[in-house]
Amino acid sequence: MKPTHIEHIGIAVKSLEEAIPYYENILGLKCYAIEEVKDQKVKTAFFMVGQTKIELLEPTSDDSTIAAFIEKRGTGVHHIAFAVNDLEHVLEETAQKEIRLIDQHPRKGAEGLNIAFLHPKSTGGVLTELCEKPQE
Amino acid sequence: MKPTHIEHIGIAVKSLEEAIPYYENILGLKCYAIEEVKDQKVKTAFFMVGQTKIELLEPTSDDSTIAAFIEKRGTGVHHIAFAVNDLEHVLEETAQKEIRLIDQHPRKGAEGLNIAFLHPKSTGGVLTELCEKPQE
Repeated sequence: MKPTHIEHIGIAVKSLEEAIPYYENILGLKCYAIEEVKDQKVKTAFFMVGQTKIELLEPTSDDSTIAAFIEKRGTGVHHIAFAVNDLEHVLEETAQKEIRLIDQHPRKGAEGLNIAFLHPKSTGGVLTELCEKPQE
Repeated sequence: MKPTHIEHIGIAVKSLEEAIPYYENILGLKCYAIEEVKDQKVKTAFFMVGQTKIELLEPTSDDSTIAAFIEKRGTGVHHIAFAVNDLEHVLEETAQKEIRLIDQHPRKGAEGLNIAFLHPKSTGGVLTELCEKPQE
């Protein structure tokens, strides 16, 4: 698939309000957007560092997958997202190589990107997202 | 501190030999170096994706911190490393802000970088490395 760069790193936090000061005051990054992604039951905060975004993920409901993740493993890195071109084709090709897909086809994610997840069982335990900028 | 980019993402694996084919054949990245870091009891494999490296970490001993990590949490993302300038100064400044440092001063890491770790207790559960290219 040859990703062009790490699009973002998703980090599970209990509360954006409590987590943002570390990123702003210690790391010196700037929170440039806060967005709620209702179907994923999360509120997200974004920071840019070089080519890559840090995406903080706060669960908005107890049945959010992020709430379950925090319950099981604590706060911390939740997923890694690679930027790719032609996501639909990349997913087909990846499925043919017997990699387990969580999403068979691209769906809409935060910031209007087309996204799909690969299952951590097929990726050495790293929940992996693929992202594509939608065509204009 | 204002990091310039994500220098690398450290990923704990049981075996480089078993993990590398996923990165090469599925993600389409190229392993450009394998290096043993004896004092950390790991063997590492590196891939470049945009500005950022993927650093796979295989424990070379049962008492390696990577072996302990895998035992407790399974394989997956182990740490995130930010590239910074003037690491010695950054560490002083960070300690003054009551962030717990694992390394009070820079030490040598893989690829000859000066590195230091921040404690995950102070960083929302993300084991965080800071890296600086040594002065020529």
